[in-house]
Amino acid sequence: MFTLIKKDKTTKARVGKIKTSHGEIDTPNFAPVGTVGAVKTLASSEVKQAGAQFILSNAYHLHLRPGADIIKQAGGLHKFMNWPGPILTDSGGYQVFSLAPLRKIKPDGVEFQSHIDGSRHFFTPEYVVEFQMILGSDIMMVLDECVHYPAAKDYTEGSLKLTIDWAKRSKKFYEQRTINNEQQLYGIVQGGTYPDLRKQAVEQLLDIGFDGYAIGGLSVGEPRDLMYEMINTTVPLLPEDKTRYLMGIGMPQDIFEAIENGIDIFDCVVPTRNGRNGTAFTFEGKIVIRNAAYSKDFRPVDAHCDCFCCKNYTRAYLRHLFSIDEILALRLLSLHNIHFYAKLMGNIREAISKGKFLEIKKEVCSCYC
Amino acid sequence: MFTLIKKDKTTKARVGKIKTSHGEIDTPNFAPVGTVGAVKTLASSEVKQAGAQFILSNAYHLHLRPGADIIKQAGGLHKFMNWPGPILTDSGGYQVFSLAPLRKIKPDGVEFQSHIDGSRHFFTPEYVVEFQMILGSDIMMVLDECVHYPAAKDYTEGSLKLTIDWAKRSKKFYEQRTINNEQQLYGIVQGGTYPDLRKQAVEQLLDIGFDGYAIGGLSVGEPRDLMYEMINTTVPLLPEDKTRYLMGIGMPQDIFEAIENGIDIFDCVVPTRNGRNGTAFTFEGKIVIRNAAYSKDFRPVDAHCDCFCCKNYTRAYLRHLFSIDEILALRLLSLHNIHFYAKLMGNIREAISKGKFLEIKKEVCSCYC
Repeated sequence: MFTLIKKDKTTKARVGKIKTSHGEIDTPNFAPVGTVGAVKTLASSEVKQAGAQFILSNAYHLHLRPGADIIKQAGGLHKFMNWPGPILTDSGGYQVFSLAPLRKIKPDGVEFQSHIDGSRHFFTPEYVVEFQMILGSDIMMVLDECVHYPAAKDYTEGSLKLTIDWAKRSKKFYEQRTINNEQQLYGIVQGGTYPDLRKQAVEQLLDIGFDGYAIGGLSVGEPRDLMYEMINTTVPLLPEDKTRYLMGIGMPQDIFEAIENGIDIFDCVVPTRNGRNGTAFTFEGKIVIRNAAYSKDFRPVDAHCDCFCCKNYTRAYLRHLFSIDEILALRLLSLHNIHFYAKLMGNIREAISKGKFLEIKKEVCSCYC
Repeated sequence: MFTLIKKDKTTKARVGKIKTSHGEIDTPNFAPVGTVGAVKTLASSEVKQAGAQFILSNAYHLHLRPGADIIKQAGGLHKFMNWPGPILTDSGGYQVFSLAPLRKIKPDGVEFQSHIDGSRHFFTPEYVVEFQMILGSDIMMVLDECVHYPAAKDYTEGSLKLTIDWAKRSKKFYEQRTINNEQQLYGIVQGGTYPDLRKQAVEQLLDIGFDGYAIGGLSVGEPRDLMYEMINTTVPLLPEDKTRYLMGIGMPQDIFEAIENGIDIFDCVVPTRNGRNGTAFTFEGKIVIRNAAYSKDFRPVDAHCDCFCCKNYTRAYLRHLFSIDEILALRLLSLHNIHFYAKLMGNIREAISKGKFLEIKKEVCSCYC
């Protein structure tokens, strides 16, 4: 459950803590993405050592592979993947709705075909909560429809009606099944890029009541200004005593903007995907390690970084590994980037605690904005 | 330099030690392959922790990428790849001669085109030693022509003449350049599948004099019996006080056969390539982890193994990782297999020391032969 620890004086940034049955998450914080039960290229212990306090996994992907049966027999996702900390699982709404035309929305749920083998599946709000209970997720998300940009207002309005109806059913099912609220259930604010629909979504979700509130349906194609506008109009409507989660975001500059407006947690593939593509994040900006400029650069990626990659390898070696398509390179930069994000979030928490949020924002954003 | 420690009473198996400027190699021993300056998927420290005492790298590949200039500036291959132990480097003869028709043998050396970009290169015996000196290899191999199977006797004879001539030139160049013999130079016995040519090769190499002797040109397409015959007829001709190295081999059963006949060191891609393909070695035989039989098998790959993979993950999880094409799986099984080979070689050394070589051979080979 969420505890607010400190509020910034000049912005809406805040420091807090989420308690889960697998440990605490200091907020603001960022979850590396382990979609199918593994943070790509990395062992769980490495993700932990790099400083990540929690990870995100995905119900849609895990439902398809390995499926409920195997994870149940393994004793849940934590044991299966040997990750001891908190796990947040997305419901898979985003993935299912991205499958169009391979999915069909019905009042009761959504029918879809697997992107892997074309097999048919049916997700109801109830099943999605049940499946996340089997996973043993610490923070579960309700099934929602994630509307992509641009979407007409009448479509978005109809979609929101469905999402709210599903949220009610999810909560009802959760209440019937939960044991001591050990797993938390978060609602998802949709409403596209329409401020009045976002407001309506918040009001209706608050009526239902959740352990935390996520803002979904952003970074789906809309201009950055519009994304910021939606965050800025939605967050103030959310209660102070619950977690605020901005889904699927993002880049350091977006994270700063969101934290300034009161967001607590994030998830995104940015650190790992960039790592696999040969881009390293540092406090002096991004480094594209494949660049020929690094072929004889025998410094670490970041001289101030104490991650496994920076303690053991040079830019020249990493560039060589990328040039020979060596998997070790993908691992090392993924690890470095997760470490960077963990360090960044820790620095932000410290800055907010000391009343220096805008200073760190200015400093880091000068390299990223 | 090689020190013979103990000889088995009933076979030609022996225990020894190779001293290098980067540490000792207990023999019999096996080098995982890091062709282009990385043992595929793994960090150097992991290879070390898995129990490998030395690794093999390749002059041909490293000459092309990253090239002499970068490795020289990095301070040698050990520093470049952050591997503290001994490095054995193959001359690249095998690779260059596999390039046919992209290579042309001339008396002075071999002209070839890069398999990567078609660029033209010329390897002389002298350059290959010089390049390995730049790498800082602890054990360097002379440039040779590796004849594939089948090869006519007259071709093999002519090729051997060239290989011996190049061996002489390599030694001469080495003597002009070596500093305190810090880097050792090994000769390579060729001669195809002709016992008399193998004998002639040994005699001529002994006349030149090397720090160790490798048997090359085996496991290149010939039947297993013929390979064993060549080992059995060649090794007895080699001096007792020098290392005997069987190049590019191999499977556990081949290793036992070779050790029984007096071989000291091996290198092969078997543990890493098999690991990446989803096959794990155990003391109860091979396990093809992709097999559906393991989908709900929550035991480690090998319950008696204390490698990182077996201590942290189950067969079911590994199978899941392979089914989603997750890189972590390739790493974990590569690591496990390197650990298995290191453990196997340690067990063999112990067995020879205790006069129990044939017992361990029977035991392990019952699962592999």
